[in-house]
Amino acid sequence: MHLIDNRSGLEVLGRDECMRLLGTAGVGRVAGVEGGHPMIFPVNYVVDEEEVLFRTASGTKFDAAARGQVVAFEIDDADPIYHTGWSVVVTGRAEEITDPARRERIDAGRLRPWAEGVKDHVVAIRTERVTGRRIIHVATNVG
Amino acid sequence: MHLIDNRSGLEVLGRDECMRLLGTAGVGRVAGVEGGHPMIFPVNYVVDEEEVLFRTASGTKFDAAARGQVVAFEIDDADPIYHTGWSVVVTGRAEEITDPARRERIDAGRLRPWAEGVKDHVVAIRTERVTGRRIIHVATNVG
Repeated sequence: MHLIDNRSGLEVLGRDECMRLLGTAGVGRVAGVEGGHPMIFPVNYVVDEEEVLFRTASGTKFDAAARGQVVAFEIDDADPIYHTGWSVVVTGRAEEITDPARRERIDAGRLRPWAEGVKDHVVAIRTERVTGRRIIHVATNVG
Repeated sequence: MHLIDNRSGLEVLGRDECMRLLGTAGVGRVAGVEGGHPMIFPVNYVVDEEEVLFRTASGTKFDAAARGQVVAFEIDDADPIYHTGWSVVVTGRAEEITDPARRERIDAGRLRPWAEGVKDHVVAIRTERVTGRRIIHVATNVG
């Protein structure tokens, strides 16, 4: 059974499907608010204990924005040839992981920094709200 | 010559390179602020007159958020095997295109909706501020 949003023509994905898709991708984007304006930042991430984890460096704008604030995290996959795709958005509070045991386990795991800069904080976004959409029809007016 | 951000270890891309990269991709993400909280939304887009254009439907949350507000628009490309990639972020005011001649030209062009829902507004984001980063080194601690 598919739930279709009549206004957008998109299939609405359930939480289980969204969490499965979150487990397949390695790069997402975090959106936050700073000084009333939106900011967006790509991150590589993992899912751990139903939270989205990413690394960030001390002193960056994003580091300041993320601590304790609500952020939106997005992943998507699109096929520009067939005009199909899906997206998942997680909205939740972002907090640094300070528990030493969990942090040690994360540091030994898959969440490695891609660039050479030191990223000494691990931020967790709670999956309080998870929404997903999938394009299931090709628009009839696609050239 | 490459400009490297010492803190992040990322190459800083100039405006010309960012605009070139914007011209290569068809799907990006728009981040806005609604009720003080961040929102993020994938869109397919084109660049026209140095503006990022995307379609949106009447009455959606995003439609309301975008009109006249500053939004952030992001594209990226990542290679999870080699841990390389780049991202470009445009920050600027988003406004609906109301000029009939321009709108007619856009409607005849490449900016087609992918899903079946009616997306009767075209929103333009001015490229007032364009920033880009590229990962040029593989982290030494990547397993």
